[in-house]
Amino acid sequence: MANTREMYVVLGNLVTAVNMLQSCPEFALLIPEVCTNLAYALPGASTPEDVAAIEGRITVVRGLPRASGMPAWSASDHLARRILEAREYDAEINAAINFKCEDTIIEIVKGYCSEHGLLFGWLDRSQEPEDVRKQDGASMPWKVSQLFTRYGAMPRLFYEEADWGKEPLFLALGKDAVEVASMAIEIARRYSIRQRS
Amino acid sequence: MANTREMYVVLGNLVTAVNMLQSCPEFALLIPEVCTNLAYALPGASTPEDVAAIEGRITVVRGLPRASGMPAWSASDHLARRILEAREYDAEINAAINFKCEDTIIEIVKGYCSEHGLLFGWLDRSQEPEDVRKQDGASMPWKVSQLFTRYGAMPRLFYEEADWGKEPLFLALGKDAVEVASMAIEIARRYSIRQRS
Amino acid sequence: MANTREMYVVLGNLVTAVNMLQSCPEFALLIPEVCTNLAYALPGASTPEDVAAIEGRITVVRGLPRASGMPAWSASDHLARRILEAREYDAEINAAINFKCEDTIIEIVKGYCSEHGLLFGWLDRSQEPEDVRKQDGASMPWKVSQLFTRYGAMPRLFYEEADWGKEPLFLALGKDAVEVASMAIEIARRYSIRQRS
Amino acid sequence: MANTREMYVVLGNLVTAVNMLQSCPEFALLIPEVCTNLAYALPGASTPEDVAAIEGRITVVRGLPRASGMPAWSASDHLARRILEAREYDAEINAAINFKCEDTIIEIVKGYCSEHGLLFGWLDRSQEPEDVRKQDGASMPWKVSQLFTRYGAMPRLFYEEADWGKEPLFLALGKDAVEVASMAIEIARRYSIRQRS
Repeated sequence: MANTREMYVVLGNLVTAVNMLQSCPEFALLIPEVCTNLAYALPGASTPEDVAAIEGRITVVRGLPRASGMPAWSASDHLARRILEAREYDAEINAAINFKCEDTIIEIVKGYCSEHGLLFGWLDRSQEPEDVRKQDGASMPWKVSQLFTRYGAMPRLFYEEADWGKEPLFLALGKDAVEVASMAIEIARRYSIRQRS
Repeated sequence: MANTREMYVVLGNLVTAVNMLQSCPEFALLIPEVCTNLAYALPGASTPEDVAAIEGRITVVRGLPRASGMPAWSASDHLARRILEAREYDAEINAAINFKCEDTIIEIVKGYCSEHGLLFGWLDRSQEPEDVRKQDGASMPWKVSQLFTRYGAMPRLFYEEADWGKEPLFLALGKDAVEVASMAIEIARRYSIRQRS
Repeated sequence: MANTREMYVVLGNLVTAVNMLQSCPEFALLIPEVCTNLAYALPGASTPEDVAAIEGRITVVRGLPRASGMPAWSASDHLARRILEAREYDAEINAAINFKCEDTIIEIVKGYCSEHGLLFGWLDRSQEPEDVRKQDGASMPWKVSQLFTRYGAMPRLFYEEADWGKEPLFLALGKDAVEVASMAIEIARRYSIRQRS
Repeated sequence: MANTREMYVVLGNLVTAVNMLQSCPEFALLIPEVCTNLAYALPGASTPEDVAAIEGRITVVRGLPRASGMPAWSASDHLARRILEAREYDAEINAAINFKCEDTIIEIVKGYCSEHGLLFGWLDRSQEPEDVRKQDGASMPWKVSQLFTRYGAMPRLFYEEADWGKEPLFLALGKDAVEVASMAIEIARRYSIRQRS
């Protein structure tokens, strides 16, 4: 499938994105309870093994975002499956990052999306049918399809509300890890300014 | 309040507990989405500043538990407040650790508690009054008092069921970080055996 | 100069090499006092800024090699200049790694080189002219030129003997970071077997 | 021998010292090629197993000092033996740290010592007898005894000049890890000011 050079491009783009996040103290404000991960899928990826992410995720140490380990294949399950599903609807999506969701951040992301002409969305899980919830692995396809149907295209920035046992979370989707990290960094900077004022 | 020597004892006990956890590959199976933290309060602690915990928490890197940073003061909010409340009911409690909660683990912990003569508990959040939920900082005192009232003493191992936006979690309370880490390690080993069978 | 895609390939190849080294406990035996670094230069690199290496180098933690930080540009001075000089004589060299030098390792590397048809070398610093030693930055060009002249081509594996203030060190040169890491890993495995016997 | 509480005090004091060093960007300027380690011996320690130090030492990542791992027993050989020998001459010495040695730093340390009434020293290895050099493990006792004899007491800050295969290094000795880290931090700050001017 993917050749070795493509694998290096994915890992190297992730390293570049991690170095950007680690240099941005404001991003520490956006790291949620479940920590941040950053994932990037190979062209033609079909399973999480073809998706690279950060081992041990990104946490906050001494006030700065810090990657716990190196980028590696199979290092994410949730974000990986998210990308694989989203690609079914939008072939340009290869990468994803998650970050904290709360009212002020929702407002900032809406503004960011309208400035950049990006589709904003949110996922209404109250619509999720009972049988989908109960069936293992059925939620992700349902969630992605619901987003696509509701907005007529795949939103690049959207949140999922809190659910039973689940922290509310924002997701950014994009063409590579550097693109989604750049979105998250710009949002973090605006959030930091709002918090100080 | 606490003297310097007591501060060193707390930090050194945490380091010892972290080294034990990092040497236990089975413990990686117990690390929840929100990661594990480990906290230890000074004698007479009154705020999270008097409680030490692991900066950036403990995540899984290359299949092994790994502390993201060093033990440090103020490095936990949730676990720190938990210890401070629990101490109001049981003066022997100084330390806490959190880990994953699921059916098999509940069963293992029940067995572990009866073998070791420890009080087992679970927190029924459906009993939480609406006004407690809404008031900032009121949940923790309510939760700890509910546990104490229900069991007639403070359970040393208990879980909180999933809630809106909250992953279900187990907590172990004890006299120091080494004691609670030892409990978690023994439970992780039993869980690992169950998973392989 | 180099385009963005080439930069990602370099960083991604370094990540892959680091993950290989981190999975090899035997490599811990080859990490010298000055720690190991691993560097990879962009095509057309002219300064250490165009060379990526591991921030904080690779040390030994809990018996395993561990990268202190991420691959990053400008993260090595010595190895970077080594690659830039060696390229003047052999355009196929883009990457370098350093490791421990002692008698048993010299013997193992000699065997490895003859098996793989690689040129082995050692640098005789007693030949270094006094004025070269004294002039800042003059040693590296002299050393690389001395190796080339002595062996008629650039050795891919060679050592520099101990010097005043300098630990003796082995260097492996190759086309990319994965290639030089693979050499070092094979040598480490042979060394580990020798040490146990 | 040492009781558990004493072990915690040693580890907790090391954590406190590491947190101080990690908060001091200027200290990055003092980290030598062989990296910095920080060791602290138990009362009555007789082997490196009774001495705690930082696993993987302290390196520089993103411009800041960073401990590679946790404090742990047996994590240093050289510094541990140094402390054990120095204690034979001065029972108040329990801890040591090493840092970079060069002309400007020598000058700063001399000034620091005269301000604080500390004995300054340097080790003249040219005096080392040939048989001491050749015998495994004989150098350390010789070096410590040479320092003591030359200065009539154990210098608390001294350097060893470069030697064959050895980088020149400064050492600070003191009653605990926090004390020697504080010395190194103050010297690093003065050095940083000198470098900027």
